[in-house]
Amino acid sequence: MLTETVKLYDDRDDVLLTSYIIGESGELHAQGKRPAVLVCPGGAYLNCSDREGEPVALKFASMGYHAFVLRYSTYDERGKDILPMGATPTPKKKIQHPQPMRDIGKAMIYIADHADAWMVDEKRIAVCGFSAGAHNTAMYSVYWNAPVMTEHFGADAAKLRPAAAILGYTISDYIYSQERAGRGEDPLFAASNTAFLGTPEPSEQLLDEVSPARHVNADTPPTFLWATSEDDLVQVQHTIRMAHALADHKIPFELHIFEKGPHGLSVATQAAAAAKSQISRDVAKWTELAECWLEKRFALDLPELTDWERGQMTTLF
Amino acid sequence: MLTETVKLYDDRDDVLLTSYIIGESGELHAQGKRPAVLVCPGGAYLNCSDREGEPVALKFASMGYHAFVLRYSTYDERGKDILPMGATPTPKKKIQHPQPMRDIGKAMIYIADHADAWMVDEKRIAVCGFSAGAHNTAMYSVYWNAPVMTEHFGADAAKLRPAAAILGYTISDYIYSQERAGRGEDPLFAASNTAFLGTPEPSEQLLDEVSPARHVNADTPPTFLWATSEDDLVQVQHTIRMAHALADHKIPFELHIFEKGPHGLSVATQAAAAAKSQISRDVAKWTELAECWLEKRFALDLPELTDWERGQMTTLF
Repeated sequence: MLTETVKLYDDRDDVLLTSYIIGESGELHAQGKRPAVLVCPGGAYLNCSDREGEPVALKFASMGYHAFVLRYSTYDERGKDILPMGATPTPKKKIQHPQPMRDIGKAMIYIADHADAWMVDEKRIAVCGFSAGAHNTAMYSVYWNAPVMTEHFGADAAKLRPAAAILGYTISDYIYSQERAGRGEDPLFAASNTAFLGTPEPSEQLLDEVSPARHVNADTPPTFLWATSEDDLVQVQHTIRMAHALADHKIPFELHIFEKGPHGLSVATQAAAAAKSQISRDVAKWTELAECWLEKRFALDLPELTDWERGQMTTLF
Repeated sequence: MLTETVKLYDDRDDVLLTSYIIGESGELHAQGKRPAVLVCPGGAYLNCSDREGEPVALKFASMGYHAFVLRYSTYDERGKDILPMGATPTPKKKIQHPQPMRDIGKAMIYIADHADAWMVDEKRIAVCGFSAGAHNTAMYSVYWNAPVMTEHFGADAAKLRPAAAILGYTISDYIYSQERAGRGEDPLFAASNTAFLGTPEPSEQLLDEVSPARHVNADTPPTFLWATSEDDLVQVQHTIRMAHALADHKIPFELHIFEKGPHGLSVATQAAAAAKSQISRDVAKWTELAECWLEKRFALDLPELTDWERGQMTTLF
C-alpha cells in the first residue's frame, strides 16, 4: 500500500488529499485498475474529524478499493484556528461555500490525472461523507456538472462525474433546519453557518442553494444513505428528505436507518471510537451493506477461474 | 497510516517485514498503544503469496489494529528462484526449518524494539498465517519459548511471546500427511518438503518435530482456526488435529470449518481474489468471527463516554 498526503493547492496547508493505494501484484486483480472511494470527514465545517477519515478509508481499502481522505476547507484550517466553545467565528471567505465542494472537484481531477500511476479506474470513483462531510458530498453530487464547478475548473465534466455517493447522517436541507423551532439557537449550528456561509443568518436563497435535497437532478449519482433515528444533532429527517428527492428523480438509492445510536458513529467500531459509546454492533453493519451495494457497480472484473484451476500454471507457485 | 517495508537481515533481500501502522490522532484511541497482528502468507514454503498478505493486513487494520506482513524464508527468495512445474528444488540450507519460524521470532523482536515509535502494544501481538504460513505460525506458537528460539536469539522470552494465533487452512501434522496413501506422490508436497526440510523423504523424527499438532503445550497461545471441509490441497484433518491438540491441552481456541470452498481463499472476497472462484460469501465470514474473537483479548481500552458527552469539550469541534 502506498500512503501519502499531498496539498491540493500550493498556497494552502489545510486542504489535503491522503491516498491509500493498494499494492498491485501479478497474483491479484491482474486486469489492472481498481475503483476508488473518496472520503470526506465531518466536523460542522469547523474541522475535519480524523474519526471519519482513515478508519473509513481502511474499510474501503479492505474491500479491494483504493481509498482517499479529503481534508476540505473548514474553519479551523487543519488545527490553526480552533473555535473555543461559545465563540463566534470570524467569516473567512476562502473556506466558505462553494469552496468545500470545489475541493472535492479538485480532488477528483487530481485523482483522474494520477489514474495511470495509481491504477485507479477514474470512471468508478465514489464520493463518501459523514455529517457536514456528507452534506459536502451531497452538494457535489448535485452540482458536479453545474457551471459553479465546470466553469471554475474549465475541466471536462467527465473528470468530475462521481460514480456513486455514500452519505452517513447527512445534512440535506438547510431550509428545513431553519424552520425547526429553536434550531437557530443552537450554538454549534450558528457557528457552522457562519463558517460555511459567512453569516449566522443566511438568506432564504442561499439556504435553498446549499440544500442538496432541493437540487437532486437526473445527473445525481446512485446514492447509499444511512443514519440513526435517534440522532439529536443532525435530525434523521435530513436523510429521509434526501432519499425522498432521490426517489422523486428515480435515482437508484439505498437507505438504512438504524433505530439506536447517537450522531457521528463513523464506522461504529473501536477503529473509529473515542469511547465505547461510539461502538454499535447494529450500526457497524452499514459498512457491510455498503460493500454489497458498491459491488453492484464497483465489482472488480475478475475471470471465473484461476490460472491454476485452468491448468495454465507453469510454475509450482 | 505509515506503510513501509524493511529487510529483517542486512544480507538478505527476501525476508521482509511490511508495516501498516495506523495514524494516531487525539480524537482516536488517545490512550495510546494498539495491539497488532503479524501476517504470514502461504505458498508451500516455495513462495509467499501476495493474496495472503496485504489484503489480510488491511482487514486487521480496518478493525483498529496495527498490522504487519512477514515475507519469511521460502524457496523462491522473493521471485529470484521460481520453481518450474515438475522441477525438483535444490535444497538451500538458509531457507530450511527452523529458519522460517525464526523469521517470525526476528519480526516479533523487531516490532517489540519499535513498539514506542509505532505505538504497538507489544504484549498484544497476534500471529496469523495461511496454509504453509499457518504451519509456520503454528510452529512458532509451540516453539516460541523453546531453546531453538530463545537460545538462538539470546532474547527475553517475553519479547517472543505471541498473544494469540490465527490459522487459516493450516498444515499441522506431517506424519499424518505421510501416512495418507499417495500423499508422497504429490509433486507439490514433494517440492515443498524438499524446500522446507531439505529432502523429499524426511526422517520420522524430523516429520514429528515439524508437526505442531504434536507439540502443543501449556505456553501455546489462544488460537483461532478456520478451514473448508472440501480443501483438497491441505486436508481439513490438519485443522481438526490442531484443534484436538489444543483441546487436549486446555488452550482456549475457536474453530470454524466451512463446508464449501477450495484451498487458499485468504479473506475470500474480491480484495484477495485472482478469480471469482476465490470469492465466497460464506467463508468471508471468518474475518468477522475472528474480529469478535480478537476483541475478547485485544479490545482497545476506551472510556465509556466521549469528552463531548461528559461536557468536557472546550472547543466546538
